[in-house]
Amino acid sequence: MGELVTAHGVVATPVFLPVGSKGTVKTLTPHELREVGVQMVLANVYHLYLRPGIDAIEWAGGLHKFMAWDGPILTDSGGYQVFSLARLCRVDDSGVTFRSHIDGSEHRFTPETVIELQQRMGADIIMPLDHCPASFATRENIVDAVQRTYRWAQDCRASHKKSGQMLFGIVQGGVYPELRQRAARDIVSLDFDGYAIGGLSLGEPKVAMWSMVAVTVPLLPEGKPRYLMGVGSPEDVVEGVSQGIDMFDSALPTRVARNGALFTLDGRQNITKSSFKDCTLPVDPECDCYTCRTFSAAYLHHLFRCDELLAYRLATIHNLRFMMRLMQRIREAIESGVFDDFKRDFLARYKVTNEEMRIAQKRKWLGLAHNHESDTG
Amino acid sequence: MGELVTAHGVVATPVFLPVGSKGTVKTLTPHELREVGVQMVLANVYHLYLRPGIDAIEWAGGLHKFMAWDGPILTDSGGYQVFSLARLCRVDDSGVTFRSHIDGSEHRFTPETVIELQQRMGADIIMPLDHCPASFATRENIVDAVQRTYRWAQDCRASHKKSGQMLFGIVQGGVYPELRQRAARDIVSLDFDGYAIGGLSLGEPKVAMWSMVAVTVPLLPEGKPRYLMGVGSPEDVVEGVSQGIDMFDSALPTRVARNGALFTLDGRQNITKSSFKDCTLPVDPECDCYTCRTFSAAYLHHLFRCDELLAYRLATIHNLRFMMRLMQRIREAIESGVFDDFKRDFLARYKVTNEEMRIAQKRKWLGLAHNHESDTG
Repeated sequence: MGELVTAHGVVATPVFLPVGSKGTVKTLTPHELREVGVQMVLANVYHLYLRPGIDAIEWAGGLHKFMAWDGPILTDSGGYQVFSLARLCRVDDSGVTFRSHIDGSEHRFTPETVIELQQRMGADIIMPLDHCPASFATRENIVDAVQRTYRWAQDCRASHKKSGQMLFGIVQGGVYPELRQRAARDIVSLDFDGYAIGGLSLGEPKVAMWSMVAVTVPLLPEGKPRYLMGVGSPEDVVEGVSQGIDMFDSALPTRVARNGALFTLDGRQNITKSSFKDCTLPVDPECDCYTCRTFSAAYLHHLFRCDELLAYRLATIHNLRFMMRLMQRIREAIESGVFDDFKRDFLARYKVTNEEMRIAQKRKWLGLAHNHESDTG
Repeated sequence: MGELVTAHGVVATPVFLPVGSKGTVKTLTPHELREVGVQMVLANVYHLYLRPGIDAIEWAGGLHKFMAWDGPILTDSGGYQVFSLARLCRVDDSGVTFRSHIDGSEHRFTPETVIELQQRMGADIIMPLDHCPASFATRENIVDAVQRTYRWAQDCRASHKKSGQMLFGIVQGGVYPELRQRAARDIVSLDFDGYAIGGLSLGEPKVAMWSMVAVTVPLLPEGKPRYLMGVGSPEDVVEGVSQGIDMFDSALPTRVARNGALFTLDGRQNITKSSFKDCTLPVDPECDCYTCRTFSAAYLHHLFRCDELLAYRLATIHNLRFMMRLMQRIREAIESGVFDDFKRDFLARYKVTNEEMRIAQKRKWLGLAHNHESDTG
């Protein structure tokens, strides 16, 4: 267990960041984020640059004021979104030209502009522009992306001026151990404030993801935060911590909540199942969130069956509270030196979504994300 | 200014009831309803009978427990919904047979079953089954409906047994003064706990609606609450109070909120207009709601532009808070004997939506309501 000191407060790690790409963690107010125990949120340059535009956010007094969240914020550079969500993306050595997925307008991100945009928004932690290739990219593509990401990291490092704002480095390398290692050494040599592992959790098997984490983490300095981007589920967060990860972000808990999948210590429960129709207990009797303290599973089931907007919100509150309590228990277990026991007990009880189905869902989701606006991390 | 004593608390009148047809005022928690000052909410038998079913609500311990709202509830009998929303509706002297707009299944409501369903749900105020003809009905149809509503009112009155639960009568009669008067005399003769004026605000010109209210109100006893169903907008509520109405319900404030129309003392503001893009002030600087205390108009504009779910919620909080403060100011003005001044000042400042556009919107909305699920009161 550690601490991450930011300009907007101290964050206890390991920490999970809910995703608020467009300056809102879907359905929730900042007040509710505090109430469920959220310490830091993630927002996204790509989305905010397109809408409402960085001018509007700067004019509002920065991202914290704009979204009325006075806790720490991390902004992702948008590298991932440019390569996955935008259209007709053309990368060259000095940047990437792309068309907006909203209106087709043409834009260009360079390492320097992305740092400038993030400085103007004023997040506590910012990320460099990285080249995040698709999961089906060839080894040659990945080599290329790793080299480019390294050059861009140098440019970002050089152009970052704002004091009180941390800049992290991002390690790419696909599912190739030697590329991950090379990238880790290169990025670490530039001396960032923290290190992220990017380009994972994109549809590859979990065993591949964890072996990439395993080869990367030992090369990252112990004294600085290690951030596994786009992860994850409760079981992945527990596994990640055991591999030395301090920070996680993922849209999964909020996205599956809106689909009616609620976390419990036994695994995800699908609230739309008819077995909940007459259930007068809360969805998770062990939970202390507003939803579980106030409503029966039957009521939540009813709201989901009617597509009532309140449903998405109540489920989001529950899943985020679940993640926050999970992180708290993880920190306590580390503090008491019993994390291994905690991990064993947690994973023994938590029924994980079938891997084949998980990958199919993820690929479907990523495919959809190309066509529709989404809250992919 | 008066008081309405219910089994779940005393309600100060004139009062406005937000619509929560399916056991939820769209997007808001019961906690937020309290916070904006809501005293009583409206739910609907037709909707709740179809989903989740009255058994599920009874099993949960009644509607108050089911929706976790411990304040007063009024349930509408579903007469209006059966005749407007359901399919293949066949009316006869002892009831109405209809098909669910959700799955086409066949159901039957009679005066007795509708009272029984409402007794089982346990609302504080319940309504009898009424025959609410379409706005394009002929005079002959309306005569028929008035006679039938009267007979059904007798049956409902006779079968209502639950103590501590008030039963109101409903006056129909289309836009025919003599039918309204006849209906009022008939219904009043049955000695209900309060009287509702139904079948208005369905696309007829406002002048017709107010002349029907004007001929009906004098025939309703002074000592009992007078309830104008399905009304309304801020300006309509002010007008209604001046005509002697004590209770109002309407989905309008919450529905237009979700479309980005926010109430201010100057009239509705469309938050999606580009003029709000850089507006760092709240939507309504005179408002004390959570939305206006916390967020700029620019942020709300951004959320609406991105179709973010938080947008609908923040706008709903604002519009309901506006309605609740309006009712409070109305009650204070009555108390101080200056209601006429208040009304004049309010209407002088409040810019009303153009009538022609209003009727077109309403008709479009009512047309849509036949095909889609909706929150029509």
